[in-house]
Formats: sequence, C-alpha cells, structure tokens
Amino acid sequence: MTCRIAILGASGYTGAELVRLVHGHPDLEIAALSADRKAGMAMGEVFPHLAPFDLPPLQRIEEIDFAALDLVFAALPHGVTQKLVRTLPGTLKLVDLSADFRLADPAAYESWYGQPHAATDLQPEAAFGIPELQREKIARARITANAGCYVTCSLLPLVPLVAAGVVAEEGIVIDAKSGVSGAGRSLRENLLFCEVNEGFSAYGLGGHRHMAEIDQELARAAGHPVIVSFTPHLVPMSRGMMATIHAAGDAAEMHRVLAERYAAEPFVSVLPLGQAPATRHVVGSNRCAIGVVADRVPGRVIIVSVIDNLVKGASGQALQNANVMLGLDERAGLDLVPLFP
Amino acid sequence: MTCRIAILGASGYTGAELVRLVHGHPDLEIAALSADRKAGMAMGEVFPHLAPFDLPPLQRIEEIDFAALDLVFAALPHGVTQKLVRTLPGTLKLVDLSADFRLADPAAYESWYGQPHAATDLQPEAAFGIPELQREKIARARITANAGCYVTCSLLPLVPLVAAGVVAEEGIVIDAKSGVSGAGRSLRENLLFCEVNEGFSAYGLGGHRHMAEIDQELARAAGHPVIVSFTPHLVPMSRGMMATIHAAGDAAEMHRVLAERYAAEPFVSVLPLGQAPATRHVVGSNRCAIGVVADRVPGRVIIVSVIDNLVKGASGQALQNANVMLGLDERAGLDLVPLFP
Amino acid sequence: MTCRIAILGASGYTGAELVRLVHGHPDLEIAALSADRKAGMAMGEVFPHLAPFDLPPLQRIEEIDFAALDLVFAALPHGVTQKLVRTLPGTLKLVDLSADFRLADPAAYESWYGQPHAATDLQPEAAFGIPELQREKIARARITANAGCYVTCSLLPLVPLVAAGVVAEEGIVIDAKSGVSGAGRSLRENLLFCEVNEGFSAYGLGGHRHMAEIDQELARAAGHPVIVSFTPHLVPMSRGMMATIHAAGDAAEMHRVLAERYAAEPFVSVLPLGQAPATRHVVGSNRCAIGVVADRVPGRVIIVSVIDNLVKGASGQALQNANVMLGLDERAGLDLVPLFP
Amino acid sequence: MTCRIAILGASGYTGAELVRLVHGHPDLEIAALSADRKAGMAMGEVFPHLAPFDLPPLQRIEEIDFAALDLVFAALPHGVTQKLVRTLPGTLKLVDLSADFRLADPAAYESWYGQPHAATDLQPEAAFGIPELQREKIARARITANAGCYVTCSLLPLVPLVAAGVVAEEGIVIDAKSGVSGAGRSLRENLLFCEVNEGFSAYGLGGHRHMAEIDQELARAAGHPVIVSFTPHLVPMSRGMMATIHAAGDAAEMHRVLAERYAAEPFVSVLPLGQAPATRHVVGSNRCAIGVVADRVPGRVIIVSVIDNLVKGASGQALQNANVMLGLDERAGLDLVPLFP
Repeated sequence: MTCRIAILGASGYTGAELVRLVHGHPDLEIAALSADRKAGMAMGEVFPHLAPFDLPPLQRIEEIDFAALDLVFAALPHGVTQKLVRTLPGTLKLVDLSADFRLADPAAYESWYGQPHAATDLQPEAAFGIPELQREKIARARITANAGCYVTCSLLPLVPLVAAGVVAEEGIVIDAKSGVSGAGRSLRENLLFCEVNEGFSAYGLGGHRHMAEIDQELARAAGHPVIVSFTPHLVPMSRGMMATIHAAGDAAEMHRVLAERYAAEPFVSVLPLGQAPATRHVVGSNRCAIGVVADRVPGRVIIVSVIDNLVKGASGQALQNANVMLGLDERAGLDLVPLFP
Repeated sequence: MTCRIAILGASGYTGAELVRLVHGHPDLEIAALSADRKAGMAMGEVFPHLAPFDLPPLQRIEEIDFAALDLVFAALPHGVTQKLVRTLPGTLKLVDLSADFRLADPAAYESWYGQPHAATDLQPEAAFGIPELQREKIARARITANAGCYVTCSLLPLVPLVAAGVVAEEGIVIDAKSGVSGAGRSLRENLLFCEVNEGFSAYGLGGHRHMAEIDQELARAAGHPVIVSFTPHLVPMSRGMMATIHAAGDAAEMHRVLAERYAAEPFVSVLPLGQAPATRHVVGSNRCAIGVVADRVPGRVIIVSVIDNLVKGASGQALQNANVMLGLDERAGLDLVPLFP
Repeated sequence: MTCRIAILGASGYTGAELVRLVHGHPDLEIAALSADRKAGMAMGEVFPHLAPFDLPPLQRIEEIDFAALDLVFAALPHGVTQKLVRTLPGTLKLVDLSADFRLADPAAYESWYGQPHAATDLQPEAAFGIPELQREKIARARITANAGCYVTCSLLPLVPLVAAGVVAEEGIVIDAKSGVSGAGRSLRENLLFCEVNEGFSAYGLGGHRHMAEIDQELARAAGHPVIVSFTPHLVPMSRGMMATIHAAGDAAEMHRVLAERYAAEPFVSVLPLGQAPATRHVVGSNRCAIGVVADRVPGRVIIVSVIDNLVKGASGQALQNANVMLGLDERAGLDLVPLFP
Repeated sequence: MTCRIAILGASGYTGAELVRLVHGHPDLEIAALSADRKAGMAMGEVFPHLAPFDLPPLQRIEEIDFAALDLVFAALPHGVTQKLVRTLPGTLKLVDLSADFRLADPAAYESWYGQPHAATDLQPEAAFGIPELQREKIARARITANAGCYVTCSLLPLVPLVAAGVVAEEGIVIDAKSGVSGAGRSLRENLLFCEVNEGFSAYGLGGHRHMAEIDQELARAAGHPVIVSFTPHLVPMSRGMMATIHAAGDAAEMHRVLAERYAAEPFVSVLPLGQAPATRHVVGSNRCAIGVVADRVPGRVIIVSVIDNLVKGASGQALQNANVMLGLDERAGLDLVPLFP
C-alpha cells in the first residue's frame, strides 16, 4: 500500500530533507509540494541537488487537492499551520514541523508567543512528536507536533531520568550547541558565511522559546514543574547538535535508567558508562546517541546527547511520526548509516 | 539471491563508505571486513558512526574464507592488491579501488610507479572501472580497476568529446579541486585540521600520477595519444570534487555530444548549455553533473564536472561496478539523494 | 605629520579591514566614517570586534567635513563614487575601492556596465591602483582606482610576463578561486553559511566584469590587445585568493623575469622555480606570493599567485596606494605577518 | 632599549604566533629560535607564511648563547622546561608556556601529572601568568608560568567574582569550547581535517588536567577550596575559545564587580549587562571579552568569556607577561585589532 503525502513549505531545508528521506521510503509517494513565494518553480530550481529526481512542481497551498492525500507534512513558518489546519479535511493526518501545536496549554502558548493561539480546541489533542516518549498517543493522533531539535536532543536523555527520579531537579543546566541549518534558509546577516565561519557564539541567552516545550514535557514526566537552565550556541558547521547536560545525581544509576529505557529503540543508542558521543557519529541519520559520565566533582554528572538537527531533530523524526500515524514500520525510510566523513 | 562480499582495507574512508552504501543494498551481504593493523577490533571502534550497525569484526586478510564469497572490494594501499590477487580463488570477482590495475600497459606502470608490476599477466584483462565508459568489459571482467576520483571526474566529460572529435586535442587544461577526504585517513601534517582549514592550495603540480590513467583512456578514445595538462588543488571541505576543463571547440556542439551520450545514464546529468554545477549538488550521491559554457574568448569552452570523491569517485562507483559484474541492477544501493545542506 | 583620512562605506568588510590596518599606521588618523543606512550607530555596533577601539561614529556622507581631510577611502557600491567625486574638494586625494575609475576608456566602461560613466573627464587621469605596476602615476594622482582582488592576483604575475614577451599571448587561462569575503557583507541567499559551507562552485562563467580590467592592463603591457580566459570559483573559506594561470612558454624564463621584476618589492615574493604558494601563506598580510612550475606537457607552464583578497586585494592595497599618494613610507601600517593557523 | 629574546620550541603554533607578535613589537628582537627535531631548517621551511621575514635559523637548544639574552619564551612539551631551567643563567627571565610551573604545590603537581616535579624548589617562586590577576608578582618574577587558554578564559571572569563573594561557590559549571589550534601541531588521527570538520565533540570529560590550575587559583581567590565542574569541547574552527559559565548569584551584582575590576585593563572588556560576546570579536587579538546575563531561572546567571586561544590564551599573554617582566609598556606589540571576517 502506498500512502500519498504532501510537503508544505518545501523550499526550506527541512522540506528538502523530507524529500530526501521520503525518496528512500518504500511506501510513501510525494503527491504535492508547496512553496507560496516559489510556486510554479521546479524543486530542482530551488534546490539544484534535487534536479535529477522526478518531483511534483511547487504549488500554492490552495492549489493542492488535500482530499487525495493520506498525510501532510507542514514545514511552514510558525503561526501559519494553526490557521491552515481548519481548511484541511478533518480526517487528514498532519505532522506539523513548526511550534504551533507543541504547547498543549493555550495560556502557555499566549505567554511565550505574545498572541492567542488560533486553534485552541485542537491544541490539547495534538500529540507531542517524539515517538520514543509518546508512541501510543502519536499512533492515535490526527495532528502530531513534531518536536524541535533542541527539545528532542534534551528530552531524550532527561525525560527518563526525571521520570525515574534519579536526577536532582534543581540546577539542571542544558548547554546546547547547534549547526547552522537549524536556523533555516532565511536571509539574515548573522547567517552569512563570513559571519558564522570560524566563530562560536551563544544566543537567546536567558529566554529561548524552546524552553516552554522543555518545561511542559519535564513537568509531564515529573508530575510537577521542573525548570531547567538552557543556553543554545551556534557551531560553524551545517548539521549536528549536542546537548551537554550538567546535573547532580549518580552517574551509574542514570546510565542504567537510560540504557534500559532505550534498549529496544532502533534510533537511540546509550553508550557505555563514561563514554560521550560526538555529532559526527549521527549526522545524516535519524539517530540519537547518549553518553553519561561521572564528573570529578562528587555527585555531579555530565550527560552528552547528539542528533542531526535536520533528521532526528526535524525531518527524520517527522517521517518517524508519520510512520507511526500511518501504521507503517517505524523504521521505513530511516535505516540510514550516518555520513562520515 | 544475496551475494556475499568482503571489504579489504575497511578502516579507511572508502572502506567505511562502502559499508554505508552496501548497508542500503538489497542483494549484498557484508561477510567479512579486513584491516590488518586493527584486526580484532570492532568496526564501531574504528568508526564510531558505524557502532550501531551489525557488522563482522575486523580481521587479517589471511583469516578470511574467500571461497565463501562472491566478490571482494579491495581498498588497500597501492601495490598490495597486485600481490594479493594470486592468493585469491581464480573465480572470485574483484573490484580494486587502488591504482594497481588501472594501467593496462606494464611499461607505463613501471615508468610512473618506479617498479615493475607484480601481476603483469592480469593487467591487460582488468576492466577500467567507469561503467558509463566500458560497461560491457566490466560485465565480463574478473578484475575491475575502479577508476579514481580525479580520473572519473575528468574522463566522464572528456572521453565522449575526444571520441567525437569535437574538442581540440591540444591545449586541454584540467584544473581540478578536491575535498580533503580524497587523501584518506593518513597521518600527515599537511592533513591536520589547522593546516587545511581556511586555505586553498595546489599540489602535485606538473606531474601527478593520475595523469597516466587520463593519458591511457584519452588515447583509447582518440585512437592516438592525447596529452592534457592536469593541476589538482585541495579545498577546505570533506567531500566533493570539481574538474574545470578549459579547451577549444564549439560549446553547443560539445553540449550536444555530452547530452546525447549520457541521456540514458542514471548517474550522469548534463545541465542545460550555459549552466555549471556545484559540488553540493552531488555530495552524498553517486552522481556526476556536467556543465558546458561558452567562454567570451571566441572558440574557447569551459566544462565543469562534479562528483562526490568518496562515492562516484570511489566507493559508489565500486558498488556500481560490482552490480555490473554480478549481474544485478546497476542502480541497486545507489539511488541516493544528495545530502544538502 | 599625521594625515587625516575618512572611510566612506565603513559598514562593509573592506571598511572594517581599513579600520584594522589604519589603526596600526603611525601617520594616519581616522577622522570620519560613513555608512548611510547605519548613520548614527557606533562602529562597534556594526562590527562588535571594533567595539573596544576609539572610533568616530558612523555618519552620512554629507555630514563629513571633507575640507579637513587629506585623503578619502571610498568603499562604496559601484556607481556611487563617480557621482560623489564632483562634490569633493578638488584637491582631496581619493582612493576608490569600487570599479568606478578602473577603466580609463569611457566606451569600454559603458559597454561592460551598460550605462555611461558619470565622470568621463576624470576617468583618464585616475591611476590604476597596483603600486608595483604603476607607482609613479599613483604618486602623482588625485584619484587612484584601487585594483580589485582578482585583477591584482592575476596581473601581478601576468603583466611582467606579457611585457617581456615571454608568455604566449594566446590561450592564457586564469582559473581563479576566492574566499567568500570577496562578495562583501550583502544579504544574498547564495552567501548563507549553509549554502557555501562544504561546497565549491564556479560562477560568472564566460563573462565576468573584472575581465575588462584585465584586458585593459594586459593591453597596456603588451601594446596591443591580449584576451585571456578567466573563470572565478568560490572557496568555502572567509579569506584568501588563488589564481592558477595556465599558459605556454618557458618556465625558467618566466621565473627569471618575475624574480627580477619583484626582487626589490616589499610585498611580492617569487618562490623558487617549481614551488607553488598556498593562500594560508599570505592571509592577514598585504603580500602576494607567486610560484612558477613547468608542466609535464612540454612548453606548458603553471603559475600560481595568492593574496588575501581583503588586504592586497582590497584594503591593504588601498592603504599602500594612500601611502604612495601621501608621500609616506609605502610599507607603513602594512608590515604584517600573516595569521596562521 | 631593545631586549633580545629567544623562542624555544618555535616549530609549534604558539612559537609561530610569538614570531608574529614579536615582529610587531618595537623593543624586542628575536635573537634565537629552537626546534630540536627541525634544527638546521629555516623557519620559512617549517612555516611558509614566515618565509618572507628575516629570522634566525632553527637551532638545537644547546646551541643557543643564553648569556646574550634578556628573556626566553619556552614553548616546549610539558615536562621539558622543568629540567632545562637549571641549565639556564640564573638571571635569565623565563616565560614558560607549558604547564610545568603553573602548579605551585609539588604534591598537587605529582598527583595530577603522575610523577614528581624536577624543580620543586623553583615551583613556589614562579608567578602564575595572568597579568590582570597577578601583575605585581609577575613584575618581580624570574619565571612566569604562562596560564593556559582554558584557565585564562575561565579565571578572568571567575576570580573577581569568587574573591568578591558574589557567586555561589557550589555548583559552578564551566562549559568550555575551543578551536582546534589549542591542540597544537601534533600528528594525531583525531586532529585530521576530515575527523574534526563539520563536527562538535566533548573530550576529557570528568577529569581534564587544567582543572588543577583552576582549583589552585580559585582557592587563592576564595581563601579556601572551590571545586568547579569543567567540560571542554572541540569546535571545528582554527582559533577562538569560549567559556560558558553557569552559576548562581545576582547577575547585576556580578556584572558590577567585573566591570569595576576590569575598567582600566587594556585587554579585558566587560560588555553591558545582558550581552554576550562571540569568539569572532577577539580572534587575532590579545583581548578577552566577558558578558553577564541573567537566566530565566531565578538566581541563575550565565557568564560568557571569549579569547583567542593562541593569543590571550598563549603567545599574546606570554608577550604581555614578558612586557611586565622587562618593565616595558604592557601593551607593546599587542595593540591589535581582531581579524574579521
């Protein structure tokens, strides 16, 4: 059985990455691609690396026949999907790569985004899209809010630890580092090659929006609020993300919890105690690798988590969520060996 | 039918890339991996990005049961395969990624490499491994000498032009540029990050060994010697290769010859006349893209050819050759979308 | 004696580089900085690396008191200086980093730029700003048209060879490669980090504007037109430029001509015959290094020339020109050791 | 007055950087350069970017006439200087860039380095070489132990805060990131371009040797032991270092302490409260820039400190120490504008 999908917002990096991954999926067919400002262009004009492949032309969203589709990936700017969703057939499955449906609480959304949500009725039913953490809800969901890269990289190690009560909830520090593709294909001076290259910088200090999602999911795991410190940095590389998590607890106990929790997961590896992964170990794949190391300061632990921000942090996880929602093999199209070097 | 293969010299970059590609091949099974100095180690210790995958341990070559294999990929240092080949079963197919069997003429080999070849009887029968140029010979060959990256990137555009007589044979200049992985995983000071990063350099000026192979294949195409100028450069990037070819002739005629020649080839694209490809359009894939542009100097043409040096320039082409030799679909395991960004 | 200078267009990379270099100059004082769209901002807001230094605020050009200045550096967009120049005091010296005054022939300008020049009376008297080639004219000039990076890197080796008649004038190929800062700080999608990083591309094939300047200066050297082929490429690095020049002639004779020609020049090095420089050998400095190598093809020569495109290719040469025009030590502020690594 | 200096271990990156900086120093003359394995070579052979400069040839250490020198920079492997020092004239000033004299306590040295120190008598009198923290002791010292890059980047913000008691001493986390040149010019597989490029990794988790020096200096500032968590990472860039320090306290108070402490220092900038510096703001210069930001978690603060690891983190600070020891202007040779882009 082939499922027909559309990719909305296909002219961005996550859209192109979805094309790459879906191309290798045995059961999915790309029926439509949208990009409002580039409607009418071929995908190969917008992304020359896709020119040799047989793909539908870029359309405006309103030109798409949604009735003929099984699932839609929405890689649209934040704020758009929550309006668009009402115009879609009520049975059409949706994986939303934006932040629109990640916060279940309308008040939290309004507080972080400065305006009310346009579809507060749909917010609570949307699944939070990290299959390893909420597979069953995703399987039943009509809308899955694909978790973002920082959030996925941080929550995969933290949720099991908080849920098991083996990490001190106070004083958790997430020092995160991302490759530049996480910022998308947007024309901003600070994303020019000469501005980024050969430099390292912190940004969004003290108040990054993704904290709201981390707050929400850690509270869900703990049963009460857990507020962490989160500081993102920009690394002069295209892909890859690391969360270095500093916390208090027993390293061996944390390692045991994580190793057991993820033993059967196809995309999450927990390294032997004392080893830490590097981003190059996962780039190009849908994998997350986690290491736990005891610090020399007694009772302090360093946890290192890595993903490819465009795959497990975006398009790969979106495809994984789609597989779950469509009842397909969760690994279909995602059995990828990382690209090295 | 599953064919069993071995990869000799699996601890180098081309070995790891073969593992990546064969993993996605429906009809091949990795039965053995060798790496003499690292024998006994797991592949995941040598290449942590391969740790999650189920692979045979690294062995010494003499520990491998070659009788149980259908085909061997040899990614060994130059000079080794020509000695090893006599110890292999006479019916075992071999794709050699080294330069050992690329020169058919024992005298030419001795002249360029400074010592006689150890298997001069086998040299003439080895196929020169660019399927687009010698598919039939490869299909019948026991040994295929996988063409190198510079040679593949240069010959794919030049051979049809020389064969058709549409390029002036005198004064052809190949100004080539390669990513650093072409130099392999060898411990040399000039390959250290701080030596390569943020710089651009030429090397091997005036006398690079790969010229011998270019000479041989252009002479085969022309029916007489054609001597070109070839200058390689090192680009501060991991993967990707470009050959900028400067020559005299009519651009439109050259474009027509190449477009017709490669119209049915799955891995070679000829861009519209006047357009030039960039390396990012093919990295991660087995593709070669070629552009032809008329220079402002009347009668002068610029041809731009790009490949991923580790895929179409090494391991991907090796797999393509293996598919041809084994009678499999030539595209099996190689239907890859380039990775961008 | 301290000379007072202004930098117009100080918010671009060449403006910032001028600030860096003038800061180390014993006899120059920065009296004014302009940047129309950023007027009112501090230089440290536009370029945080300059925040610790005591610099004038950014102004609009019309706010500058030009009567109090000895020399102006104009790093403005192409087309602006030719209009601005009439509003400046007639005795004020001007080093123009744009292309406005590089072509002495109004017809050639109109042909390449598609519109008539706004100051055709001043075009012929402007000096072409490569001191090693036209020092005397620069010393007497009111306006010096600072030569661009590609042109400087190509002409420093070619002009003496053409003038001496030791290179075949037909079939000269300049295969040039530039770091990304040559494109300036402009918001263009193809300059985003993720577009440039890990890739190599050719651009402006067949008809780059800088050819007009190369044509002009080679004709001046030869006494008749010499038309070369010129192909620029983009390298994933911030600074550095190489011109690989392919030509016919005798390598030893070419080397002798260049070595003698530049023996006394403080900023140009000619390497021993057979050696080629890399861009890292000059980055951060005002130096040009040139190598001459005999090709294996008899009678063919490869010449490699490298500069830092922002120093000898822009701001450093502008300062060198200013030193000549002001009667200062030509090396003042420019005795810089390259930055490596 | 010109002081004569020697650089021992001149074939490494810090040696080359000392040559660059001393070249711009009005009062220092390079009298000798040593590199045992490369003795007899010209500096320009080891570092082609230095070829145009007039420098002494590389010698063996025993060939140097130390009696004719005023000061020696020792950029030797760890463990060598402590033996060499006894062979030097007793009055010769020494700036040691290795770790040999950084720990004043012989027991601490033996504990961290696994063997007794060879000059325990000299350990206590050596000054710890960060002039902003111990200028007076350095001015009187015969031996100054140049502080390393991680330690300088961490201590410049932390020492004043700990001394003033405005930071909670428990739970301080230093999450540090370094460019690759910090690892030196050593032939190690993990420093190859293709291993480092496009990746981000943590290393030395839980027990990096530089912790001993941080322990020592924080204890000196606090009057009692202060044990911090320190985790270094490798960034795919040549130069630059950031320490992101996570701690508890009042951001405004911390900012006030640092701003006052460094108001008169020529090489340390404290940014306005709430702003964080990036490494590109200081690369190529001897500067340290520090930012203090209040976290969203009440009572938590993020401090960002950046340096160029080869300048303020090594050779620049060594020159600054030498200036202090020789009674010269502390800024001589170090008034450098950062290189951007």
